[in-house]
Amino acid sequence: MGVVVQKYGGSSLADAQGVKRVAQRIVATKKLGHDVCVVVSAMGDTTDELRDLAEQISPLPPARELDMLLTAGERISMALLAMAIANLGQTARSFTGSQAGVITDSAHGRAKIIDITPGRIESALAAGDVAIVAGFQGVSMDTKDVTTLGRGASDTTAVALAAALAADVCEIYTDVDGIFTADPRIVPAARRIDHASYEEMLEMCACGAKVLHLRSVEYARTHDIPIHVRSSFSDRPGTWVDNRSEVEPVEQAIVTGVAHDRSESKITVAGVPDKVGEAARLFEALADAGINIDMIVQNIPAPGGTSTDISFTLPRVDGQTAMEALARLQPEVGFEQLLYDDRVGKVSLVGAGMRTHPGVTARFFAALAAAGVNVEMISTSEIRISVIVDEDQVDAAVASAHHAFDLDAAEVEAVVYGGTGR
Amino acid sequence: MGVVVQKYGGSSLADAQGVKRVAQRIVATKKLGHDVCVVVSAMGDTTDELRDLAEQISPLPPARELDMLLTAGERISMALLAMAIANLGQTARSFTGSQAGVITDSAHGRAKIIDITPGRIESALAAGDVAIVAGFQGVSMDTKDVTTLGRGASDTTAVALAAALAADVCEIYTDVDGIFTADPRIVPAARRIDHASYEEMLEMCACGAKVLHLRSVEYARTHDIPIHVRSSFSDRPGTWVDNRSEVEPVEQAIVTGVAHDRSESKITVAGVPDKVGEAARLFEALADAGINIDMIVQNIPAPGGTSTDISFTLPRVDGQTAMEALARLQPEVGFEQLLYDDRVGKVSLVGAGMRTHPGVTARFFAALAAAGVNVEMISTSEIRISVIVDEDQVDAAVASAHHAFDLDAAEVEAVVYGGTGR
Repeated sequence: MGVVVQKYGGSSLADAQGVKRVAQRIVATKKLGHDVCVVVSAMGDTTDELRDLAEQISPLPPARELDMLLTAGERISMALLAMAIANLGQTARSFTGSQAGVITDSAHGRAKIIDITPGRIESALAAGDVAIVAGFQGVSMDTKDVTTLGRGASDTTAVALAAALAADVCEIYTDVDGIFTADPRIVPAARRIDHASYEEMLEMCACGAKVLHLRSVEYARTHDIPIHVRSSFSDRPGTWVDNRSEVEPVEQAIVTGVAHDRSESKITVAGVPDKVGEAARLFEALADAGINIDMIVQNIPAPGGTSTDISFTLPRVDGQTAMEALARLQPEVGFEQLLYDDRVGKVSLVGAGMRTHPGVTARFFAALAAAGVNVEMISTSEIRISVIVDEDQVDAAVASAHHAFDLDAAEVEAVVYGGTGR
Repeated sequence: MGVVVQKYGGSSLADAQGVKRVAQRIVATKKLGHDVCVVVSAMGDTTDELRDLAEQISPLPPARELDMLLTAGERISMALLAMAIANLGQTARSFTGSQAGVITDSAHGRAKIIDITPGRIESALAAGDVAIVAGFQGVSMDTKDVTTLGRGASDTTAVALAAALAADVCEIYTDVDGIFTADPRIVPAARRIDHASYEEMLEMCACGAKVLHLRSVEYARTHDIPIHVRSSFSDRPGTWVDNRSEVEPVEQAIVTGVAHDRSESKITVAGVPDKVGEAARLFEALADAGINIDMIVQNIPAPGGTSTDISFTLPRVDGQTAMEALARLQPEVGFEQLLYDDRVGKVSLVGAGMRTHPGVTARFFAALAAAGVNVEMISTSEIRISVIVDEDQVDAAVASAHHAFDLDAAEVEAVVYGGTGR
């Protein structure tokens, strides 16, 4: 039996009962003969509560101190979990990110893992203990300060530890049964995905699927760690993310899932002089402000026209910073107008099957048209098509595309009919 | 200007407003030109809340994990305080006990400080930063695990750091103006003590005065660190604890203060055979159970009698353990009966002036008699007299002794008369 890494999120550890339930699952895994290393997030809304406390103190708290504050959350959950496991007769030891050897750079609040030196974890596992590690946190190589890896990064801690420990699998426990073909709140007929490739999952995550942290999937792909996303509230199998679908290209659906994202906004720079290098200056200014641009569309100038419009999408939280950076360029570049729209949403089809199936775009656009959805921007990759639509039309677009690509589950319909008494 | 160590307790850091108020005080001290190292406790009732959480999980949590849990409290308060200080334009860096170099033994929950290696603190001070250190916690020398020093031990962290940094003073901030001649809730005329010697303060702490942690005073005496106990809610001077009163024995009050303690209980072992070594066996059994005995009284056997009664006091929390340990000895030692009484209180007079003033005991007992208080047990040291009385008579005993030794403040009486309109 090998090493199993399990990661439990805040919703699985919401209260004392949740902690006890998770402890039972861990002990059951241990009794199967595995070495078990557990990564935990903070309980429930603890991290948000700590953030609120910081906001009461300071509008712009120093990043080093914010990291020191937020890491208290995992410290609480991991110690309680170790107690609950001990209460079941199994020894367990909790470790902070620093104690677990999670070495990062010094970028507080969004630190990157540089190395994992899991000597203490290996010793604990060798002694027969369950090792519990605080997710989301590490220690900086240069300053030995406590760092955090960014929201949702406990998944990344888990996958990185799985790689360092040469684990057989990294199980990501959450409050749903896995990753679905679409958000079940929008598409009741959405099905759980059995298998997805790393590439598909990367596209899903980048397009708004929130179940897995993007960087954790990148890490898993690089180190070839199978991820099993499943529910901590049931024993049902969840979604496997691995390279099996690439190794065994069995009969495959064209589209794996429909993702959506309401966290973006759109900026249009109208009347940009149609000269070489003007667009580059705009995007340099945004890059200097640390803003990541997602989709970009540049209109073709009208015949005889001397200016063009450039539109792009970016995270809503960066909207104000971007508008200010661009406004400062207006005298120099001489564009006419800046327009900001945060009432947009992104809908994406993702599927490795797109590579070999032509006509996906046509079918997608027909589905959108049938639902009366107007497409504002388009971008594609080898295994993804994304469109920007009006925020109010996101749900209709997702549902229509899900149906058009035969993703709707038969079983859910049966349940619905059953519910009406037939 | 030298180094000043300031310690702020949980009541001073109860909420965001409290944290901001403390930050202003720290920045004001820094502006006077001092290097400032701050030791913090957890905010308000955080530590008790974390203990409650642990109790919901496990009746007997592993000590290592309980320490991991409880140290989250100071992590939160120190990070918030650093933010509040930064918000006032002063740089500050927070450090865990481990980062601050607080090296302890491995006795989780009651670890002793072995050494302080404050390299990071000294670097921060040299860089002009305020250094903020988590009180109550350290890291074990052998296992590198997180340890806690016991309830109230943030005072000890502060004094130990003051010694390691060769600080000019260790200021202990609390929610009262200093140490009083008696508990003002019992004796409204109690006065703030200006100066006390280390020895007097040790006796006061050992006899129930809760303002300072006993071990912090021992540490201060060993390293000759002046302690200034004062309020974080006012700028009034507080109580100095140092060796000045020994160096300059100016005209001194006989009694410095009247302390009381309701946390003890009394056990009487009745009918112990009056043979050599029987009492020793009783106390060995208690020592083996890890119980500290305070006062002991052995009755003289009645003329011609062959047995004696032995009474002693001990912490109430140890009462059950002690009774069980003694009951197991009954067949072997052959005493007649075990009696347990937790309705007792201890009242103590403390004062270095007792050394040179005879008649203190007589005056104390006259005061107790005048108040109708029955004395059950007595013990004395060079600068202290303690009596055990009925719990219901503690207040009367304290008030009467306070008055008899001229400790009542004239000013408070004036305030009282003022209140009646005179």
